[in-house]
Amino acid sequence: MPVLKKLLERNDSVAAHNRAHFDAHAVLALDLMSAPGAGKTALLEATIDALRGELRMAVIEGDLETENDARRIRAKGVPAVQITTGGACHLDAHMVHEALHGLSLEGVDILFIENVGNLVCPASFDLGQHRDVALLSVTEGDDKPAKYPILFRAADVVVLSKADLLPYVGDFEPARAERCLRELANAAPLVTLSARSGAGMRAWLDWLRSELSARRMRAASTRLTIQPLSAAQPPV
Amino acid sequence: MPVLKKLLERNDSVAAHNRAHFDAHAVLALDLMSAPGAGKTALLEATIDALRGELRMAVIEGDLETENDARRIRAKGVPAVQITTGGACHLDAHMVHEALHGLSLEGVDILFIENVGNLVCPASFDLGQHRDVALLSVTEGDDKPAKYPILFRAADVVVLSKADLLPYVGDFEPARAERCLRELANAAPLVTLSARSGAGMRAWLDWLRSELSARRMRAASTRLTIQPLSAAQPPV
Repeated sequence: MPVLKKLLERNDSVAAHNRAHFDAHAVLALDLMSAPGAGKTALLEATIDALRGELRMAVIEGDLETENDARRIRAKGVPAVQITTGGACHLDAHMVHEALHGLSLEGVDILFIENVGNLVCPASFDLGQHRDVALLSVTEGDDKPAKYPILFRAADVVVLSKADLLPYVGDFEPARAERCLRELANAAPLVTLSARSGAGMRAWLDWLRSELSARRMRAASTRLTIQPLSAAQPPV
Repeated sequence: MPVLKKLLERNDSVAAHNRAHFDAHAVLALDLMSAPGAGKTALLEATIDALRGELRMAVIEGDLETENDARRIRAKGVPAVQITTGGACHLDAHMVHEALHGLSLEGVDILFIENVGNLVCPASFDLGQHRDVALLSVTEGDDKPAKYPILFRAADVVVLSKADLLPYVGDFEPARAERCLRELANAAPLVTLSARSGAGMRAWLDWLRSELSARRMRAASTRLTIQPLSAAQPPV
């Protein structure tokens, strides 16, 4: 079997294990992917502030080096584990599995996994997440979905970040970014927001809430399907 | 031999072949690397405008998909070949070698190779270039050299791009970016510029001119070293 295929199969089996772990704790797990510096950590900081008291969150941070991002999250009072990949350009399921050993999911509603800043490689590795979040900063150019189709084709929501800079970058048309996304046959919601000014945050928070309740409804209906079987067991 | 090591060795041998080709044509070859959307193509456009009539340039563009960037360069009257890598997250020496078959270097002074937007993978693959140019946009965060040390440690010049946005991003300190770079023991020049406003372009153009003349002096001294041997050949 080709080496890459074997690697991906091993990754997928650990990813399935991670997902079962998330499901057992009724945690919604999201994989945040973007180019370096698109504002993933800033979005998490603003999300934590906005949902404080409403939802409990935890974060796994991926970077080649430094604990900078995990420190920023912990400063907000949210548990965070930093994965430093060394030279590796993306997280994989094994790294996330290892990180989970250092992170209690007890009582957690949403786990954010912030991937290494990279628009290519992270898209090919399942971590066990339920949903893919792709960020595109308005300073990066509106043709990015066409140039990095693998990631944007798979995204379950696309966030156009740093919208407060739109008046200054001049040549970024959110409508053109959306057209590039639709040309990949991706109908995912597109949310334009600024973590700094707070503009557009409500649509992002609503997406999080609706994903979380959809997941809980699925989990409840799974339990309902299993119950009759258990009820049919002979009493001990 | 491990697969990756074998791959890199094959790549290095093609890279050496590319470099010999550049040297035979007295061309300075530069590999431009950055995160997606840091403004590599915009810098090339501004460079072409500034050096028109003084130096002859050619461009190899690397992207997963689209001919967008090569089209932008050709619109400036400069020959450009687009490599579309499909899923690959970086250029390699074979791709550049292939592209060179479609690009005459006759009379060219500088060949710019614009790598796939990615702060990790391109740094590990020699293309045959003489110098590494790393761009970091001021919208990306000033701790990026610490977070992506492989690329920034190897850079021969670091360009802080989109400096016209500095007043609006708020939290980017060029001095902090420079400190991160120096902590990697890299003494390379750091040029802060805006391709849009033209501010700082002079330092970048001077770096290009000095690299080009240094390369020509090296080439001339190599010829001088070789000459006595040729002179010692018996006349035919």
